[in-house]
Amino acid sequence: METPAFNSEIHVKGWVRTRRGSKRVAFIHLNDGSTIHNLQIVADIEQFGEEMMKKISTGACIAVTGKLVESMGKGQRMEILAEQILIYGEADPEKYPLQKKGHSMEFLREIAHLRPRTNTFGAIFRIRHALAFAIHKYFNHHGFIYLHTPIITGSDAEGAGEMFRVSILDPKDPPLNDTGEVDFHEDFFGKETKLTVSGQLEGELGALALSEIYTFGPTFRAENSNTPRHLAEFWMIEPEMAFYDIDDNMDLAEDFLKYLISYAIEHHADDLAFLEKMYDPELMERLRFILDNPFVRTTYTKAITVLEQSGIKFEFPVKWGSDLQAEHERYLVEKHYKKPVILTDYPMDIKAFYMKQNNDGKTVRAMDVLFPRIGEIIGGSQREEDYDKLYNRIKILNIPEKDLWWYLETRQFGTAPHSGFGLGFERLVQFVTGMANIRDVIPFPRTPKNAEF
Amino acid sequence: METPAFNSEIHVKGWVRTRRGSKRVAFIHLNDGSTIHNLQIVADIEQFGEEMMKKISTGACIAVTGKLVESMGKGQRMEILAEQILIYGEADPEKYPLQKKGHSMEFLREIAHLRPRTNTFGAIFRIRHALAFAIHKYFNHHGFIYLHTPIITGSDAEGAGEMFRVSILDPKDPPLNDTGEVDFHEDFFGKETKLTVSGQLEGELGALALSEIYTFGPTFRAENSNTPRHLAEFWMIEPEMAFYDIDDNMDLAEDFLKYLISYAIEHHADDLAFLEKMYDPELMERLRFILDNPFVRTTYTKAITVLEQSGIKFEFPVKWGSDLQAEHERYLVEKHYKKPVILTDYPMDIKAFYMKQNNDGKTVRAMDVLFPRIGEIIGGSQREEDYDKLYNRIKILNIPEKDLWWYLETRQFGTAPHSGFGLGFERLVQFVTGMANIRDVIPFPRTPKNAEF
Repeated sequence: METPAFNSEIHVKGWVRTRRGSKRVAFIHLNDGSTIHNLQIVADIEQFGEEMMKKISTGACIAVTGKLVESMGKGQRMEILAEQILIYGEADPEKYPLQKKGHSMEFLREIAHLRPRTNTFGAIFRIRHALAFAIHKYFNHHGFIYLHTPIITGSDAEGAGEMFRVSILDPKDPPLNDTGEVDFHEDFFGKETKLTVSGQLEGELGALALSEIYTFGPTFRAENSNTPRHLAEFWMIEPEMAFYDIDDNMDLAEDFLKYLISYAIEHHADDLAFLEKMYDPELMERLRFILDNPFVRTTYTKAITVLEQSGIKFEFPVKWGSDLQAEHERYLVEKHYKKPVILTDYPMDIKAFYMKQNNDGKTVRAMDVLFPRIGEIIGGSQREEDYDKLYNRIKILNIPEKDLWWYLETRQFGTAPHSGFGLGFERLVQFVTGMANIRDVIPFPRTPKNAEF
Repeated sequence: METPAFNSEIHVKGWVRTRRGSKRVAFIHLNDGSTIHNLQIVADIEQFGEEMMKKISTGACIAVTGKLVESMGKGQRMEILAEQILIYGEADPEKYPLQKKGHSMEFLREIAHLRPRTNTFGAIFRIRHALAFAIHKYFNHHGFIYLHTPIITGSDAEGAGEMFRVSILDPKDPPLNDTGEVDFHEDFFGKETKLTVSGQLEGELGALALSEIYTFGPTFRAENSNTPRHLAEFWMIEPEMAFYDIDDNMDLAEDFLKYLISYAIEHHADDLAFLEKMYDPELMERLRFILDNPFVRTTYTKAITVLEQSGIKFEFPVKWGSDLQAEHERYLVEKHYKKPVILTDYPMDIKAFYMKQNNDGKTVRAMDVLFPRIGEIIGGSQREEDYDKLYNRIKILNIPEKDLWWYLETRQFGTAPHSGFGLGFERLVQFVTGMANIRDVIPFPRTPKNAEF
């Protein structure tokens, strides 16, 4: 937006952040949520009357017409000399919960309907928006098709975690069949349905027709994890690409993450500076660490050797065949390589059935991207395109074939090498904003025993 | 993408749409899903061998290296003389369901995992992608923040329709409380939760902090409607704007819809031409009708008079106070005004509780945008910003106050005039692609008794 010229008449609307001043003049800081910077309104108290000025308290919504002038005060380049003020809505100082003083993040979570009015959450949600837009922009530019995969699913084959049931049956007296079990034939979809944990399998169907697709939608985990890293409802981005091998997949993941972080820095430098100052003094350094380093690419097996030879006593012991914990991932990134790391070729038994099997018979073409502070930010793989190998793996893992007939058919008809990965959107927003708790980077978090608003 | 020069060596990958030719030469039509146009590959049968050529059948996935040359044949400007062909995946002609001949839309719905490989669904999903991107682009450009409102909700106050329950309780033996009712305190969220029917109420919270926001996410209706117009799971776009009155809201809706349709025409002329030719000879005319006409803006009350004086015998009788049916809406647009129409100021009793009440005591500041063929495409309103009026309406309608305390608080603290609307994404895609059935504009439709894939 172009800044209007000095001495022009302008018209602004927003919410009062603070009002201070003398007996003669009030300085009102106004914000409409579009930027971290407040606009200073200077109002002659005699002109507007004490009665009216009292109503212009923190949280009130007003419209101001006035002249834009150079500011004599500190902290702003310009201010508005108020000529007219219209009060849209007052905010009784006795009742309005967001007063000038700082509030704990815990308290702000309880008033999630009002917290976007704070500097902190304004900044977070603007950055969240920018990252979402950058994701769409990046993929659109590269010819990817945005594919809406289903939210309600009749298959739980992905096996990524506990699932929520979706039903319209009477919860108290569900219909039962002859064997005394709940008769899901009478449910809305004629069978038991759940909320999706991933759009990947359907995404692969898209890639094996349209070449390059991505999903960006909500996914769900019914896990009773009350931690700063877990949400029951969160958004995922899952690109799937025909004709990409694992190296192409790694190239894409690195370029994509660097693009997103660059975009946030380019478009929201002021919001990031605010968050760095208030919450996380190493925020910009950590973002630049991602941009300035080529990602190290090595195997899980080599990483295990590095960890074993580190001399560090980790909380979780290091052993080939075990999954890596955040402490291991952070050691590799922060202490050993001092660069972002992509680990490949994980043991088959700790990864999902659809990953491409290596010839060694014990590892798969998985790739996990590891970042400082948070560990894994992306998990992906080349997918198994060979029908027989995929079918055998499904049999060994006892996954019901009837849940996956359509997935298997894509390997029977015109199969192709292909790859993809998943990025948890809130993990990304957490990394870019430096927020310690994932509940503070989504407008209305869903967690165990909490679905307010 | 730049077209490579003639005689350059190029490398292409994709799926075989058809193979025809003589004993000596095969003409393979290849498509990778990025465009409606196939690429013609010319292969010398002797060079590659009959055995191999047989495997290059409809549905097979291949990579071809060859020389790009001017085509002598009809229907394409250029073709590739194959030097090397690699077969990634065959597609047994005895088993592959997508043969050259046309298939019914009903049949293609049963193989939704393969239908994106057809010309029709390639075109539809590319246009769907383009519309989704254009939505984000438009709002980002205008300073709107993309707000992710919750999918799982503890409130059913919006009242837009039947809802799906989300639960992890044992469906057969749910825990009961002292009064013999299901004890939802033991459920994941500690209370009964549903899938959202709209993000609007939470969207308003965002607008009353960040000024201009929009949602774009899945919404759900558990209605047993087996029609070409209904889905149980569909995507909605819901902008909400502080400081917009109903006129600003109408300006936005008209500009937004025109932008989206222009974007589709600009970026997907070939796909639209294909759909027009194959399915809907009036498609482009209908799209241009939207672009070329200013939308007529009039009131519900005037529309009732027009309908009453039309002399038409409608299936549903016209009466002030009744909701308009598609037949009425289409008459207004197609026969009477011959322009897209925005109707405003509907009877209070047929509209939702949150709409701004007019001074007449019987109408509200609703606005519905009506299009040819489909009737209502957008429904919106100025929102009631007055606490007392909103509170009284909630009481009259017996909506539990405990479900809406947070919504009511925004009218207590810094309330502002504001407006918004909802656009069903699939209705839009249906309009732009001309598809008769809404199940054909979403990759994996969810409808009564159907949640396959």
